[in-house]
Parts: sequence; structure tokens; C-alpha cells
Amino acid sequence: MFEKRQRLMDVARASLSNKYAGEEHAVMQAISSYLEVEKVRNQIFERLEEWYSIYFPEFRPASPTSLARFVIEFGSDKKRAGSDELRKVIGEGADKVHSMIKESIGGEPGVEEYSTIKSMAEGELSLLEVEKKIDSYLEGSAKRIMPNITYLIDYKIAAELLAKAGSMQKLAMMPASTVQLLGAEKALFKHIKFGTKPPKYGILYKLPQVVSAQKKQKGKIARMYANKISIAAKADAFSKNFIAERLKADLDRAMKKPKKG
Amino acid sequence: MFEKRQRLMDVARASLSNKYAGEEHAVMQAISSYLEVEKVRNQIFERLEEWYSIYFPEFRPASPTSLARFVIEFGSDKKRAGSDELRKVIGEGADKVHSMIKESIGGEPGVEEYSTIKSMAEGELSLLEVEKKIDSYLEGSAKRIMPNITYLIDYKIAAELLAKAGSMQKLAMMPASTVQLLGAEKALFKHIKFGTKPPKYGILYKLPQVVSAQKKQKGKIARMYANKISIAAKADAFSKNFIAERLKADLDRAMKKPKKG
Repeated sequence: MFEKRQRLMDVARASLSNKYAGEEHAVMQAISSYLEVEKVRNQIFERLEEWYSIYFPEFRPASPTSLARFVIEFGSDKKRAGSDELRKVIGEGADKVHSMIKESIGGEPGVEEYSTIKSMAEGELSLLEVEKKIDSYLEGSAKRIMPNITYLIDYKIAAELLAKAGSMQKLAMMPASTVQLLGAEKALFKHIKFGTKPPKYGILYKLPQVVSAQKKQKGKIARMYANKISIAAKADAFSKNFIAERLKADLDRAMKKPKKG
Repeated sequence: MFEKRQRLMDVARASLSNKYAGEEHAVMQAISSYLEVEKVRNQIFERLEEWYSIYFPEFRPASPTSLARFVIEFGSDKKRAGSDELRKVIGEGADKVHSMIKESIGGEPGVEEYSTIKSMAEGELSLLEVEKKIDSYLEGSAKRIMPNITYLIDYKIAAELLAKAGSMQKLAMMPASTVQLLGAEKALFKHIKFGTKPPKYGILYKLPQVVSAQKKQKGKIARMYANKISIAAKADAFSKNFIAERLKADLDRAMKKPKKG
């Protein structure tokens, strides 16, 4: 009796482990973490920018990384920065920054304050490393489990669709119109409840083809993509055939004559 | 003519530099950064907890640090963790965790996935370092510029009041009733606009004395503190006298008979 129970428990455990051990679940965790880290890193950047701007208000860093690196290297005494070193640290625009430093109205932080600001900059760079790590994991894993979808669209957008859907199976069973609106749940709710305009796209608004399209075309393009993604999802989830080349060719053809689309 | 202009510019610059070079401004930056980093670190912790919980769902980490350290040390293969090592990494409760590991239904992450999860854990620990650094800077600087206020209340709450007020001078000029409601602007606005209940405290709800008070007493205690903080602020901003011992004694006396307060 005890042995039988034990065996049943083991089976149950194994199936539970399997359910979550799949790469599918990991991709969903990874994309959520990626988006969180990206957001959070921007918040830290904004705080750092505001704080350090007291000491170098003229500086308009080209990226969070150049601000962080500048602060770490020269933040205790910016006048120390030679133009060669500057070029190494912030790259392009170094000459302009060099002359800004000479003219700057900003003072220098005290020792203790500087070490605090510097630790914020180091935090920023660590988060950037985390972000890169998740990104590179995501690229491999999303492409492995969604070879068809990621042939059509960016792997991060594909992962977002998957995370919203909840599983590959769910994504594959969705009608194209639902895929088109994944991520637009709030706007859809508002539309139904308050009669605001219906949303035309959710996560798919991030597609470069949608971003760059004329306003009137955006909805149409999102729909075309949703159609093909929906077919690709079925292949990724069930048949495991690679059919994305054909889908891509169809898409490219349709994109050329969007007015008839 | 040019020289005169130059001289005037120099004076203007120097005054601008002075305005922002003060420790006051740094304290405001530091507390805003502290609160941001704290929030952000919690978000990363929550993501990490959710992700790693697939592999060790039974684990209830006592703190973000113990989760991060556990993941870094044993996350690739938790069965490897001996009880001595576990004790070093997570301290109390290690024996319980040790037996949980043996019984766990969770599997182990793949190599690539693990290295991603681990980098999240490392990000968490870096942010913790940033947080500590800001905290220790804040302790020194807030106590230097607000010796009276920080004698009455926690230096972080004092810094928050200062940041909300915008400057020592503004804080010192505020009536006690405004100090009491600093940080409750939204609730105050709702009260005025929609007739909801008026707020009784803003940032001061964080005072342990308010937290632990009975509901009916909270507003009263916040008011007593606001009164003394307001007096202390005037001393910190203008007279620079240290009068906080007397204020503290008054407060302690008043706290003992809150019903008559």
C-alpha cells in the first residue's frame, strides 16, 4: 500500500517537474525579467542623471552607459579628464564634452557624496550586464522553442506574446484577432465598458513595420502579422515543421501592396 | 566692457554653483535615490523569486539576500548544498531548508538558464550594496544639516520631509500642520475635490510611534511630532542652535499622556 502511494507520488512529482522544467516556462520568466530589469535600469539612470547634473549640468550623455562610465572615471573631478581618456570612456562626442568641462558652471561633489553617486553608476552598469545576459539567453531559447514565429518577428516580441498567452499551446490555439490584441487588454476593456475606440494592436505595436507605418496602415499591418504569427504558432506548438520561409514571403508580398491588404 | 561682462558671468556662475553645491541638495538627491533603489531592488527580488520558485517551490527565503545568495551558491544543483555550507549562506533556518531540498519536487535549471538566473541574483546583491552606500551617506549628511530634526526622528524620514519641502528654508517656514501632511498631497487633493476624509499624516506615518499607535491616536501623535519637527527645522535652518534635547523631552512627556494631548 505504502509503496503504491509512493509510486503515485513520484509520478505526480515527475509530471509537475516536467511541466515547469520546459524551456517554454523559462522563456516566459526571462522576458518578464528582461522587461523589468530594463525599466528598473532606466529609473536608476534617471536618478543618477538628475543627481550628477548638479555637478555637470551641461553634459547630455548619449546613453546611460556613457553617463555611468563618465561618473565612475571622472565624476570626482571632471577637469582631470584628458581628451584621449574621454574618448575611451564615452566615445563619440568626446571633444565636445571636453570643452564643456572647461566651461562648466558645475562644482565637484565631496568625497562621501561622490562615492555614493559612483555606487549608483556601478549599480547601473551591473544591471546592464544582467540585461545583456537575459537578452542573450532569450535569443537562444526563444528561437529554439519558436523557430517559426522568431523567423517572422523579433525574438523578444515573440517571447512577450508567449508570456501574455501563458503557454505555446494557448498561443497556438488563439485566433489571429486575439494575437493581434495580446497586450491591449486594458484598452479593450475600456472599449467594451466605456465605448472608447477599439485597440488595433497590443504588443505588436513594437514591430518596426508597425512603428514606421503611416497611422492609417498600422492596424492593417498588425493584422497581417497576427495572421501569419498565428499560423507559425501552430507549427511551433504542434507540427514542429519549419514553414516560416513561405509565411515570410507571403508577408513581404502583402506588405508591398498594403492598400489592397 | 568685455572684462566687466566676464566678471558678472563669473559671479553668476559662482552663485549657481553654491546654490547646488550644498549638502542640502545632496541629501534630497540621496533620499530620492535611496527610495528608488529600494523599490527597484524589491522588484528584481520578486522576479527572481518567481523564476527560481520553479526549481525550488518549497523554499521561503527569509530575505532577498538569502534568496540571492542561495541561488548564487547552490542554484545550479541544490542537492549539492551541505548543511554547513547552507548555514553559512542563509544562516537561520538552514536545517529546515536542508531537509526541504531532499524532498523538493523542483528540478534543476539548464546551464544557460541558470547563468541567467544567477546574474539576476548578482544584480540584486549589487543593488543592495548601492542601497547600503546611499544609506550610510544619508545618515551622516542628514544628521549634519538637520541635527535637531534627526535627534527627534529617523534620519531617512527627516530627509524625506526635506525633499518634499524642497529646501531647509522652505521646511523651516512651514506651519506644523503642513509638515504633518507633507507627502499626503494626493489624499489632501482628493479631500478638497471629492470630499473624502482628510488625511491625518503624510510621510510621518512611517514613524514607529505612529505605526504602533492605536488607530484613533495616530493623527494626534503625528501632530505632536509635526509641532516639534517644525520648531527643530527653524533651529536647523536659521539659529543653528541645538535645542532638540528639550524638544525630545517635551515629546516624551506628551507621548505619555496622549489622551490629553
